[in-house]
Amino acid sequence: MTFKVALVQMAVTAVKSENLEHAVTLINKAATNGAQLIILPECFNSPYDTTCFPKYAESIPGQTSDMLAQIAKDNNIYIIGGSIPEIDNGKIYNTCPVFSPLGELLTKHRKIHLVDIDVPGKIRFREADSLSPGCDFTTFDTPYCKVGIGVCYDLRFPELAHIYGEMGCKFLVYPGAFNMTTGPSHMEPLLRARAVDNEVYVALVSGSRDETASYVAWGHSTVVSPWGDVLATTEHLETIVYCDIDPDFVDKVRTRLPILSQKRTDMYSTVVKIK
Amino acid sequence: MTFKVALVQMAVTAVKSENLEHAVTLINKAATNGAQLIILPECFNSPYDTTCFPKYAESIPGQTSDMLAQIAKDNNIYIIGGSIPEIDNGKIYNTCPVFSPLGELLTKHRKIHLVDIDVPGKIRFREADSLSPGCDFTTFDTPYCKVGIGVCYDLRFPELAHIYGEMGCKFLVYPGAFNMTTGPSHMEPLLRARAVDNEVYVALVSGSRDETASYVAWGHSTVVSPWGDVLATTEHLETIVYCDIDPDFVDKVRTRLPILSQKRTDMYSTVVKIK
Repeated sequence: MTFKVALVQMAVTAVKSENLEHAVTLINKAATNGAQLIILPECFNSPYDTTCFPKYAESIPGQTSDMLAQIAKDNNIYIIGGSIPEIDNGKIYNTCPVFSPLGELLTKHRKIHLVDIDVPGKIRFREADSLSPGCDFTTFDTPYCKVGIGVCYDLRFPELAHIYGEMGCKFLVYPGAFNMTTGPSHMEPLLRARAVDNEVYVALVSGSRDETASYVAWGHSTVVSPWGDVLATTEHLETIVYCDIDPDFVDKVRTRLPILSQKRTDMYSTVVKIK
Repeated sequence: MTFKVALVQMAVTAVKSENLEHAVTLINKAATNGAQLIILPECFNSPYDTTCFPKYAESIPGQTSDMLAQIAKDNNIYIIGGSIPEIDNGKIYNTCPVFSPLGELLTKHRKIHLVDIDVPGKIRFREADSLSPGCDFTTFDTPYCKVGIGVCYDLRFPELAHIYGEMGCKFLVYPGAFNMTTGPSHMEPLLRARAVDNEVYVALVSGSRDETASYVAWGHSTVVSPWGDVLATTEHLETIVYCDIDPDFVDKVRTRLPILSQKRTDMYSTVVKIK
């Protein structure tokens, strides 16, 4: 059962209310165009800036999450709500909430791996300056297939994608915000390798590029097939990228190349230590 | 301590003696041009064909391995001897022998994961029709850095590259022979992701393309840096690709992006079950 996803590569400003209104407009547009699962970018209601996270943080449920629940229900669609700074018990997380077509909060993913990068003369960013990491794997079921969620830097850890594949996910979604240093060097090969290694669809959804922001996003929201082909992508401007996902194609690829059953589990294995 | 490697993308014929003479000529040329570690392609003394493997198979030590040992000593260089069909106790392996500048057989890697591919209308190949799999990880030390060895399809398994990284390898070498279906789709993104995920240099060395062979190689021998940049590559014709490898750059990249120490070993880990 093929389904249509929309990657909302939206422009994020410093005004939260504007960001929420803008997200609603773009989600309505994507739904009107037939998208059944709509994905927002990382940190879509706040600038991606460690000094902003505490100021913009909300609880879940909360203002942003209520808005997403309503718009999901209004349009009868799934929403993967990019991510927002979430506050809980005094700690702040980079959290992706997920909503059903009935407007239910299905699950939320707190970014497990926090960005820590220092490329002299290019970029320095440490999420741990204001964020705490999540400690859970996050998947949810749809009538189409099971979906696994990571947030941006989580993409760098092949174990997570592998574990989601083992859990039965056929589609991995990473709201993200690669930057102008790591984006051109790493984003596409990592997406393609995660797809090929696990024979799953993989999508990364970025915000559009704002050269005036303290952290400049690479954009280039992309969907990759289980065979590693880039099915849909874009440059850095605001846009909505649409793509049809065919869960049955996952099975076809796994027949072509049965690598998942060829793991040498007598020599190595990836062990899951929690649920 | 930077060192120069040579990727010998040689033409392989159906005549073993020709292949051996040709390998000697190209190794001598690469050594004359200053290469300190010379890498041959997968199955360089035999056609890459499951019906040929039993006919061309040799023991190690044996004719081909003796030749490589001598030429390594003559030139005072390391040789990663691509691979050859190896016979041992009635079983045939796809084996990469490695030689020191003193002409010693340092180690050998028997391909762990055997190719099993069936893309209708494109390619069908099952190494298990005549080969047995190896069951060992294979690394060796040089004055430059520790090196890890896989053979072609082994590249598809991220666990192997990860384990080699954990074992201290800063350079992963895969003699290979991607084909015209998987080469353009998978080879470069897999090489780049293995490099970026483990922050190591990665090389794949293919034979050149022979359109008349039963299995047509993609070529495109490539070296990728620990940052994921393609440092040296080529098209499909016979050639020698040279590249300088700087083990210190591995440490620099690991400082920029400390992903190896950021693994969530409280949530998952890759377990090695043998030595």
